[in-house]
Amino acid sequence: MKMSTLFTRTDKTAKEYDTINATLLTKAGFVNQLMAGVYTILPLGLRVLRKIEDVIREEMDAIGGQEIKMPALHPSENWKQTGAWDGVDVLFKIKSRTEKDYALGQSEEEVVTPLLKEYVNSYKDMPVAVYQIQNKYRDELRAKSGILRGREFGMKDMYSFHETPEDFLKFYEEVKGAYKKIFERLGLTAKVTEASGGSFSKKISYEFMVLTDAGEDDILYCDKCDFCINQEIAGDLAECKKCGAKLQKAKAAEVGNVFDLAQKYPKDFEFSFTDASGEEKYPFMGCYGIGTTRAMGVIVEKFHDENGIIWPENVAPFQVHLISLGEDEEVKNESESLYKDLMEKGVEVLWDDRDTSAGEKFTDADLIGNPIRLVISKRSLESGGYEVKQRNETESKIMQQQELFDKLIRS
Amino acid sequence: MKMSTLFTRTDKTAKEYDTINATLLTKAGFVNQLMAGVYTILPLGLRVLRKIEDVIREEMDAIGGQEIKMPALHPSENWKQTGAWDGVDVLFKIKSRTEKDYALGQSEEEVVTPLLKEYVNSYKDMPVAVYQIQNKYRDELRAKSGILRGREFGMKDMYSFHETPEDFLKFYEEVKGAYKKIFERLGLTAKVTEASGGSFSKKISYEFMVLTDAGEDDILYCDKCDFCINQEIAGDLAECKKCGAKLQKAKAAEVGNVFDLAQKYPKDFEFSFTDASGEEKYPFMGCYGIGTTRAMGVIVEKFHDENGIIWPENVAPFQVHLISLGEDEEVKNESESLYKDLMEKGVEVLWDDRDTSAGEKFTDADLIGNPIRLVISKRSLESGGYEVKQRNETESKIMQQQELFDKLIRS
Repeated sequence: MKMSTLFTRTDKTAKEYDTINATLLTKAGFVNQLMAGVYTILPLGLRVLRKIEDVIREEMDAIGGQEIKMPALHPSENWKQTGAWDGVDVLFKIKSRTEKDYALGQSEEEVVTPLLKEYVNSYKDMPVAVYQIQNKYRDELRAKSGILRGREFGMKDMYSFHETPEDFLKFYEEVKGAYKKIFERLGLTAKVTEASGGSFSKKISYEFMVLTDAGEDDILYCDKCDFCINQEIAGDLAECKKCGAKLQKAKAAEVGNVFDLAQKYPKDFEFSFTDASGEEKYPFMGCYGIGTTRAMGVIVEKFHDENGIIWPENVAPFQVHLISLGEDEEVKNESESLYKDLMEKGVEVLWDDRDTSAGEKFTDADLIGNPIRLVISKRSLESGGYEVKQRNETESKIMQQQELFDKLIRS
Repeated sequence: MKMSTLFTRTDKTAKEYDTINATLLTKAGFVNQLMAGVYTILPLGLRVLRKIEDVIREEMDAIGGQEIKMPALHPSENWKQTGAWDGVDVLFKIKSRTEKDYALGQSEEEVVTPLLKEYVNSYKDMPVAVYQIQNKYRDELRAKSGILRGREFGMKDMYSFHETPEDFLKFYEEVKGAYKKIFERLGLTAKVTEASGGSFSKKISYEFMVLTDAGEDDILYCDKCDFCINQEIAGDLAECKKCGAKLQKAKAAEVGNVFDLAQKYPKDFEFSFTDASGEEKYPFMGCYGIGTTRAMGVIVEKFHDENGIIWPENVAPFQVHLISLGEDEEVKNESESLYKDLMEKGVEVLWDDRDTSAGEKFTDADLIGNPIRLVISKRSLESGGYEVKQRNETESKIMQQQELFDKLIRS
């Protein structure tokens, strides 16, 4: 993409928010705040969000998840059926012109359970897992932490149904494995943390937590083993329950969660199935979330420096930030031809072709944070190539075209 | 995809709706109604919807549209600013716990205008066009026509800003060209129809109308030239305004529209720019919609027979519906190997690998409506190949593997 055609621009003087993610994503032109907790995703941000979504989609498909798209507008009856109409304080409620009440989806158990009831009649129809990637709505008293806790936000939510608790647990482990892969691909190290089961489940649930000061949770984790627990259920626990080592305390942001919902929702909606012996039973249900816009925010919290964002390669809007310097015809032609060559080879390039100063181009490249900065100038051409610098390194080096192509197409 | 893994199933005894699109899409397992005017998109439906969206995305990008994703939750202030808070009867309104009022997006002029105001300051920043593909919400008194008029529905909406009316008109023509390409690629013949400008614009707008009895509009069109007008602004017009021929009357469904919004929204939000002479002016604005879920419905209205849907090739969930018949090992192995071969070659295959009757498999293939039905049976293998039938033809023919590959990879 040519930067001259992009309608957004970096704004180094933009409003400072109380979180790094909102400040950097706004200054660099990835998101724009419409009101507290509600953001427009701009072209650069949409590229990142799509990559996050695609990673999630691939891993959900790999464990047999089937993608659907449920509505956000729900009939109040479904929420009354589960007690959540009055029980969930963040539920947005709407009254229509015809005096009908609706809820805006903040989670979709109330829709997915009656939906699956229509298709699952026998034990042969299970296990089954469906998921969607869709916006969710929460009537938060205070939106905070930039795009980490919004009133409208992107989420992948998956729901699974099983004949037995054992089969549920088997799938639950598969999801945990898939989640580890997802966060690894997103460049994040997530700790699997024991937490409370939420409003309806008395059981332990698991949260996937990334250590960051921007997080809203306090977790206790063990340095010696993988034990990790949310402080809200652990209290003043000082020693690891697994190995006895002293626990560390840290702020963390939740990027995913898995809940054991047992038979609550199937019972609420009278969703039963026939088992092999002809008996009618209720399925066991699990639910599994990952915040997609939140993940984008957490990545920024983890990967930045004083000059801007440092995107991990898998989610960067572009692999290469190409800068051409000066008015020299040879520089312009070489830039144009390299831009086309790289795109033909499938390399994503943001080309700063604007008529602006070298200083501004360098500052913008750092702020936007693509992994590789490529400079073409009279000087670099005289040195026989391009000046290449990784966003996370300070030294640049001169590369010939072949060496550059090898690097980019290998990586 | 193996049909045995799909959680949905065809349901020939499902509820009959008052429209063909809702009835067939439900019976074939593409959508599931949550409540009047609100549908879940199931895996097969999501494949179709994605293809429709991708066609639209390509053509919007080709004319310089930049994709963004705006929120559906809007601050009431923006809607009050334009008079639409009280003026638009289908606007869903929400009161939060903190007594703040929100609107649910039914169109996004109220968000996109203040957004662009932040980035467009000079005539050099225009023309600019941004679009999104996102769900919209309308508080309809009566939802009707299946997925053609819903309370929640998918839409592509683009907005453009221009220095002069002339530049707007130039872009307007480009959009009309792009829309023609889109509908052609979707298999639809859309008539460009003069209509009223809606609530705020006194000007003529254009609607893209597909002739179908499921449509809610009455249009008058000329057989001899391309003149076409919505009856609601034409009254009893009998003769073509362009060529004088007698006008035909027909029911039609709107699949797209283009509006000249002039300077209304920029004025409402005090969005001005500096022209070349340093003068402050308001930009000229256009808006351009295509209903994505509606397009899916209209395609079904146009392409079906008494047995089911007949998807145009570009939007079919799969190119090939592969049916293996009988318990013969050779048939099973041959099916498995062909399924893998075709997928490796990039052909999308839905393989009916279920342990069910030949009759049910054939009926389901017709109902789901993929363009090519491929049967492997002991008989077909004895004849040296596969039995191939187009969904829109009655005769099948035996094809060798090479002939089949040539056909599929060419098409």
